[in-house]
Amino acid sequence: MATRLPESAYDDRLAAVRERIAASDADAGVWFGATSIEYLTGFAHIQTERPVVLGVTPERCELTVPRLEVDRVQDNPRVDAVHHYFDYPGGRPVEAAASMVREMGAESVLADADGAPGTMGYTGPPLSEFLDVETQSWVPRMRWAKTDDEVALVRESAKWANLGHRYLADLAEPGAHPATVSQRASTDASRAMLDTLGSRYVERVRGDGPVTAGFISAHETRLPHGHTPNQRLREGDVLVTGASANVDGYHSELERTMFVGEPTDEQVHYFGVMLEAQTIAIEALGPDVLLADVDRAVSDYFEEQGVADLAQHHVGHNIGMDGHEPPYVDRGWTAHCESESTEYDEADARMEPGHIYTIEPGLYTDDAGYRHSDTVVVTEDGSEVLTYFPRDLESNVIR
Amino acid sequence: MATRLPESAYDDRLAAVRERIAASDADAGVWFGATSIEYLTGFAHIQTERPVVLGVTPERCELTVPRLEVDRVQDNPRVDAVHHYFDYPGGRPVEAAASMVREMGAESVLADADGAPGTMGYTGPPLSEFLDVETQSWVPRMRWAKTDDEVALVRESAKWANLGHRYLADLAEPGAHPATVSQRASTDASRAMLDTLGSRYVERVRGDGPVTAGFISAHETRLPHGHTPNQRLREGDVLVTGASANVDGYHSELERTMFVGEPTDEQVHYFGVMLEAQTIAIEALGPDVLLADVDRAVSDYFEEQGVADLAQHHVGHNIGMDGHEPPYVDRGWTAHCESESTEYDEADARMEPGHIYTIEPGLYTDDAGYRHSDTVVVTEDGSEVLTYFPRDLESNVIR
Repeated sequence: MATRLPESAYDDRLAAVRERIAASDADAGVWFGATSIEYLTGFAHIQTERPVVLGVTPERCELTVPRLEVDRVQDNPRVDAVHHYFDYPGGRPVEAAASMVREMGAESVLADADGAPGTMGYTGPPLSEFLDVETQSWVPRMRWAKTDDEVALVRESAKWANLGHRYLADLAEPGAHPATVSQRASTDASRAMLDTLGSRYVERVRGDGPVTAGFISAHETRLPHGHTPNQRLREGDVLVTGASANVDGYHSELERTMFVGEPTDEQVHYFGVMLEAQTIAIEALGPDVLLADVDRAVSDYFEEQGVADLAQHHVGHNIGMDGHEPPYVDRGWTAHCESESTEYDEADARMEPGHIYTIEPGLYTDDAGYRHSDTVVVTEDGSEVLTYFPRDLESNVIR
Repeated sequence: MATRLPESAYDDRLAAVRERIAASDADAGVWFGATSIEYLTGFAHIQTERPVVLGVTPERCELTVPRLEVDRVQDNPRVDAVHHYFDYPGGRPVEAAASMVREMGAESVLADADGAPGTMGYTGPPLSEFLDVETQSWVPRMRWAKTDDEVALVRESAKWANLGHRYLADLAEPGAHPATVSQRASTDASRAMLDTLGSRYVERVRGDGPVTAGFISAHETRLPHGHTPNQRLREGDVLVTGASANVDGYHSELERTMFVGEPTDEQVHYFGVMLEAQTIAIEALGPDVLLADVDRAVSDYFEEQGVADLAQHHVGHNIGMDGHEPPYVDRGWTAHCESESTEYDEADARMEPGHIYTIEPGLYTDDAGYRHSDTVVVTEDGSEVLTYFPRDLESNVIR
């Protein structure tokens, strides 16, 4: 049962970026992105208009934070010093970060951006006003392949997502309100997870539970990103569900197409085509496989079945700390890697052990949507599906 | 009972940006930001790695979207044409948007950024590779002052937030688990809102309810952005709560410091100082008031009380479509407006009718945090507090 990333993971990641800094002409690495800062140090914060800035040199690892984050980072064993400004815009975050970096003995830096992101209305000067700055995007690239420890967290997430989904399926019935079904399933699964893990549970959420389960229903399922209608479930409704759980900041994705009552022949047909497309994609996954080929295998099958015009998106995406991460299982991925507008090359067009993909080909008719999503990790010799709620029609009919 | 922004609001906003385009040397306005696109057109989407691009000329309003958003925008009366690419990165969103803008008869544009934001791993070329681009930040600035229609939505949000908070306060008791209390309060208030509003409710959420109520508790309240501990409530716990409701995309903020059982003398003391600070700030609000003065009034009071070192952040921020929006009630706001790094000037340093602020001065000891947050609109002749859960000590002790 993996519930917490081992401390050594952060040491390894910091060592990896330090190697790159050493191999460069720069004196330090700098990060403004919240996810990258968490990935390297384990310090998680909500990105707001108050920038947080990480500086790393071969010897030191220091942070500039707003006052309200000081106490949370104080005990972090990897952070050698914490600097702070009081708040924004009274404090000057980028200036403070530049001073920090200079005190660390660095003048030229490789930063993930030339200044803090414009989140929630932040505006401020570029870092290059104060230091010699070139940009790098090391961490997002490092995150593509997960270590065994990371895979274990996603596997644990899939477990609690399954419980949330089981409760959801049990509570969904004609007359039930979507909000009640979703939120009760989320609450009960969250409580089960919290009570099971006890002190091993790493606090990660505020107010809401670590498990979320929900669905869009009826006419809204026509839209891949539909909303939940304020309308009680009725016989004949199609649901497109979704469940996940936050395990030390890592996520899985489980989605099912379900039917309230007996599906029509047309519904059974589209469900079957979607299910076969998902099976084709899952079976195509493996090390060295071109991502584009997996998407193409599905679109070829949809062509064959005469439903190509009902597809509205590619097959899936990488997942881990973020809900969507590159690379994407998209027919254009190889061309994207080879184009001059990216830093990727041909090798980046292929799957590697540790990549974790959502596999979710969908079909959308005028009446309803059909999409399952499973979370699959690429292994040394193939792949392993981490989510395990049954995919077959019979298991997804609510009677 | 306001539950939906009138269609005319979007017409007014589009007219306002068209005036600015006409007054400029550019042929069109372009937006990549999801909130700005929603503000101008009413088309709401989740910002992902698939960019959405809005183009506006004096005559036309057109969108470039991924295939999966086409059906949702099709019927929007303000959008004259919808262009799409299939998905990212197989499709080329910025190239597609540039073609759209050129077909609209524009070569030079004023855009909210020179390309799409790097959300969820998106990377792509700058728009200036294809068009003559200067940047503008009109919409974020337009959003500072809310119209009466917008204030009415925030007022409606405050109503349902109050119900969620009432349920939260009723369910919180020694032995209760935070996840259950929070999620049950959210579910019950969401259902009450959905059943009350019925068909007037504008679908806005997926899975979760329109009302959220939760809290951080015990040792985590020391941290302004703490998490919820996996620990049943105990006599002596301090809670810092939060409740809100999504009403056609607008939000309010209601937070209370609560005590499980009788507070200690020390707790009563800090609660009293916090409450007085909040009262001072609320009473200081009004048209033409310098935002910085409100923050300073609080910090002066904290100095006087000898608790200045327990403050960790400024007094508050504007709120509306986003949870945090500029301007900020911060002692540095005037200097920020006057500095050369912003487009603001001295007039922007003052409150105006229609600004909606959270007022939330906080104190954080080694044991607990003390913070109420109320949502207050600046009016022609003063201010009006929109949130109304009682602020006094007695109402916030759980017995």
